[in-house]
Amino acid sequence: MSGVFITFEGGEGSGKTTIAKLVKEILEKEGYVVTLTREPGGVEIAERIRDIITNVCFTQMDRKTEALLYAASRRQHLVEKVIPALEKGHIVICDRFVDSSMVYQGIARGIGIDKVYDMNLFATENILPKRTIFFDVLPEVGLKRVYSDKDREVNRLDLEAIEFHQKVYDGYLYLCDQFSDRIVKVDASQDIESVLSQVVEKIREVL
Amino acid sequence: MSGVFITFEGGEGSGKTTIAKLVKEILEKEGYVVTLTREPGGVEIAERIRDIITNVCFTQMDRKTEALLYAASRRQHLVEKVIPALEKGHIVICDRFVDSSMVYQGIARGIGIDKVYDMNLFATENILPKRTIFFDVLPEVGLKRVYSDKDREVNRLDLEAIEFHQKVYDGYLYLCDQFSDRIVKVDASQDIESVLSQVVEKIREVL
Repeated sequence: MSGVFITFEGGEGSGKTTIAKLVKEILEKEGYVVTLTREPGGVEIAERIRDIITNVCFTQMDRKTEALLYAASRRQHLVEKVIPALEKGHIVICDRFVDSSMVYQGIARGIGIDKVYDMNLFATENILPKRTIFFDVLPEVGLKRVYSDKDREVNRLDLEAIEFHQKVYDGYLYLCDQFSDRIVKVDASQDIESVLSQVVEKIREVL
Repeated sequence: MSGVFITFEGGEGSGKTTIAKLVKEILEKEGYVVTLTREPGGVEIAERIRDIITNVCFTQMDRKTEALLYAASRRQHLVEKVIPALEKGHIVICDRFVDSSMVYQGIARGIGIDKVYDMNLFATENILPKRTIFFDVLPEVGLKRVYSDKDREVNRLDLEAIEFHQKVYDGYLYLCDQFSDRIVKVDASQDIESVLSQVVEKIREVL
């Protein structure tokens, strides 16, 4: 696969989605072909799986069921969208990937990082991003952004207690430390222009 | 858990479902409390997952996505229905369980038994049936039964080529050999009365 696989990670309201669109514009002006996607990313089967995961009525959902559903959705999105784009030589920027599962299900829900990682290996067949950018912003700052943005739909995860989001944040810091060759941090508490320039710089390093 | 967990396995049209109902009647007359279930077994989240798996339009479904969805459905059914019944001391008879995934996804779809088994361990946390009964009938005989039963809804698996069902059959024979302490075979090509008495006998051995 001749393309470059890049993922964005971070808590709610860390600005990943906004920055991703701007990065795409910049790289395309330079002649790169960029596929911007997010799980489940318009892949019908994956969307249908996502509907089950995010259904606010399903409070009885077991944490391992949730982890398996994320992995199933990830698999289908990878096979139908990410791999074909990488094969065409695109830069693929994906908003969330395996690291999200390790942090949200593995750490914050307490299943354990290793178990979630091993199970995800089944789904990804060891396809990992060449670079992962962690949008580093304190959970209270991120959540404030979420709640002040009236256009943003609030989902099941936004509604978790602050302790949950703190665990997610600590989990990401742990992963940054464990996979320091792949995951790099950007200070996402700054203004958009500043975050954007940091992110573009980190991406250029692997192009 | 004080109950006894029993699973029925076999190809399409092997008579599992019919026999399960009759076994339940017999055991209940003897004073046992029997929970008869099948994946997804009336557990709402699991049913919703099943709808995605069996949707005949989703021909683009990757085999690993399928395996992960079965495991997710299994997990939720196990947590919401099987484990609570076992904790109450019931005999739980479940139509299909992990062996189905090992045979259908592991062997017939070619993912590999070990990979499917390991991934399912995440879902089941090593909860295995005390006894598994394999309904042994040649695939061509089973499929004939399926197609001659006008009340039975034909699903995505029934429509697979005979070669697929042959692989499933061979896969089950392999599992019978590998797990001979847990899985026992009954000759399911015989009439209902005969199959029933074989099955009841095999269940009594573990009560």
